[in-house]
Amino acid sequence: MGEKWVLMKTAQTPTNIAVIKYWGKRDETLILPVNDSISVTLDPAHLCTTTTVAVSPAFQQDRMWLNGKEIPLSGGRYQNCLREIRKRAREVEDKEKGIKIEKKDWEKLHLHIASYNNFPTAAGLASSAAGFACLVFALAKLMNVEEDESQLSAIARQGSGSACRSLFGGFVKWIMGKEEDGSDSLAVQLVDEKHWDDLFIIIAVVSSRQKETSSTSGMRESVETSLLLQHRAKEVVPKRTVQMEEAIKNRDFASFAKLTCADSNQFHAVCLDTSPPIFYMNDTSHRIISHVEKWNRSEGSPQVAYTFDAGPNAVLIARDRKAAAQLLQRLLFSFPPKSDTDLDSYIIGDKTILQDAGVEGLKDVEALSPPPENGSAQKYPGDVDYFICTRPGKGPILLSNEKLALLDPETGLPK
Amino acid sequence: MGEKWVLMKTAQTPTNIAVIKYWGKRDETLILPVNDSISVTLDPAHLCTTTTVAVSPAFQQDRMWLNGKEIPLSGGRYQNCLREIRKRAREVEDKEKGIKIEKKDWEKLHLHIASYNNFPTAAGLASSAAGFACLVFALAKLMNVEEDESQLSAIARQGSGSACRSLFGGFVKWIMGKEEDGSDSLAVQLVDEKHWDDLFIIIAVVSSRQKETSSTSGMRESVETSLLLQHRAKEVVPKRTVQMEEAIKNRDFASFAKLTCADSNQFHAVCLDTSPPIFYMNDTSHRIISHVEKWNRSEGSPQVAYTFDAGPNAVLIARDRKAAAQLLQRLLFSFPPKSDTDLDSYIIGDKTILQDAGVEGLKDVEALSPPPENGSAQKYPGDVDYFICTRPGKGPILLSNEKLALLDPETGLPK
Repeated sequence: MGEKWVLMKTAQTPTNIAVIKYWGKRDETLILPVNDSISVTLDPAHLCTTTTVAVSPAFQQDRMWLNGKEIPLSGGRYQNCLREIRKRAREVEDKEKGIKIEKKDWEKLHLHIASYNNFPTAAGLASSAAGFACLVFALAKLMNVEEDESQLSAIARQGSGSACRSLFGGFVKWIMGKEEDGSDSLAVQLVDEKHWDDLFIIIAVVSSRQKETSSTSGMRESVETSLLLQHRAKEVVPKRTVQMEEAIKNRDFASFAKLTCADSNQFHAVCLDTSPPIFYMNDTSHRIISHVEKWNRSEGSPQVAYTFDAGPNAVLIARDRKAAAQLLQRLLFSFPPKSDTDLDSYIIGDKTILQDAGVEGLKDVEALSPPPENGSAQKYPGDVDYFICTRPGKGPILLSNEKLALLDPETGLPK
Repeated sequence: MGEKWVLMKTAQTPTNIAVIKYWGKRDETLILPVNDSISVTLDPAHLCTTTTVAVSPAFQQDRMWLNGKEIPLSGGRYQNCLREIRKRAREVEDKEKGIKIEKKDWEKLHLHIASYNNFPTAAGLASSAAGFACLVFALAKLMNVEEDESQLSAIARQGSGSACRSLFGGFVKWIMGKEEDGSDSLAVQLVDEKHWDDLFIIIAVVSSRQKETSSTSGMRESVETSLLLQHRAKEVVPKRTVQMEEAIKNRDFASFAKLTCADSNQFHAVCLDTSPPIFYMNDTSHRIISHVEKWNRSEGSPQVAYTFDAGPNAVLIARDRKAAAQLLQRLLFSFPPKSDTDLDSYIIGDKTILQDAGVEGLKDVEALSPPPENGSAQKYPGDVDYFICTRPGKGPILLSNEKLALLDPETGLPK
């Protein structure tokens, strides 16, 4: 069929949130961390990246579109991923379409890549993690790469460190590794998403007036200037990682919550110990923490764990659906939408939790009574942009339905 | 003259701000710290405590008034100071008034104490430091105590840790000591207030909606739960203290500013690493830091150092009067008074700096142009309550003018 064919694969990959934080590289180019980290994968139904990769002898160069806009592929991080995955490409044959690509052909063939996040990229929700994981996973499928998810994770890691943890569902550990070439710095699944399926997650997307330090430059500055970072990496995290694995294995929510909150706070402490200091959390983040701490204390055992990445957004992990409903009531009481915001755009993701919380409209929000443990009962309308309700979720999947592809099967250009 | 006489002394004692922070006790009762600390004494003309102590055979019990209100003296901290100072009391004779107190009489005689702060106690400006230092200093004078200021500082320390540093002017070091009884945990003067008299200090009293954790309970929780505190105390502070002493000795402002800012940030990092986390700084504090960091960077060398205690207030130490005037312009641009506030109550202390800044009225504040290094130029009216302009200052003094006494010389009761 001459030089007209286009071969495509489309994949969907989740984002993840660390409960033991990655902060600091020992190698900037290979993206090798100073400590192990552990994450929970978020349900791709609510937060994921979809990526279509295509190959065709008609393509003149590698090109990429992110959320519909073409972006340059010249950056080292993209180049590293493309080079590593091309190295591992194998023979591909599609008899139906009469296509045969030899192993050696991959070096000459160009790629088209289209990627799309089902959540706002600007919200600081680690879109690069899902993005690079999805790119590597989709290319591996297209190129018939033999390597397993862990080996792929070591490639995705070179695009964005935390991307390696998005190659699996459930709870995932990024082993820092020891080798200088980074070959043993990869992700492994601790348990799949069914192991602990009581958990429910609410993300508060917090309004911010500040421009934030990127995590790449932030962690470089921490490594260079914080006198606490090495102590954390060498003395604190190794023990904490063992305890966290144990807590996850035993579904021990009290330990899980204690470790998750302590590690989030310590990561932000290291940011503050950086020169100049880095502030990711703001007054709203602090208020959410205070509310959760008060409620947990009043209940006698933790109902909710909190964790914050390189931004003011709170990721709140509730022990179960009931606790999540009570949490949502508390959050909506203190952080109601502004008067011009409708509930349907204020609570997104798994909206069924609203029924559990007994909140069906803005009137129900106004009628919420102050949480008994909350002394001040002050309200902060507008301080949260919106809430995403979700759960732990599964790892990357291939989408076989061609209608979901982001590239046109004829032209290989964005639809 | 029978049992009617009243003998009084009145003293004035400065407050101080730590540039190497004290955070964490190794002994709660004796108030022994986990590390050395270094402070600068603030000019008592703007921030001080005045205390009158009186003794009379007519007094029925020990009594104390703080800012005109009687307060209980039953607390352990007051009792410790009173006990220790009474132990060291000596014979006192006032031939003019015909009074003679034998050493042994002091155990039976009762005291009246009146204390007054010339700054808002609620502003979180370490009023207890000046307060306990003044109490101990005034009692030592009344009781003809032989001990020198360092020895008195070890007594004041048992009232409030940082009080020991208020027994001297200039720059002061609190040596943590090694003895279990605390006898070698005391303050020494590094240099007096004339050694580095270029420095100018502006304190931004920041509005706060949050109720803050007291430093006493905060540092207890940090000692119990922070995994970074011991590393800071044992590994970081000892080296930093040596560097800070060197910087002060050489009037090396660049090193002084770097160390001061880093140590303030690390103290707040340890607070954040505490469980539950302690937040003393708020968004306004963060903004002030960002402004100072940006300006220092744009100038190529530090113009201003910042340090924050257990609250959101910024203490800004400018390298000289010129830098202070430029700092004040920047602060007034970003944090102007609310429209109903007059400049006279918004800038207190040494107001002469206003002329240097070219600001004589609210119109001049409105006319200020945005600092060239500040990209956003956003304004936050009302986020700062007021500014106190001051300088490094002298240590405690005895006030001989009886008109300044806070107790009536006849009755021994508050005037």
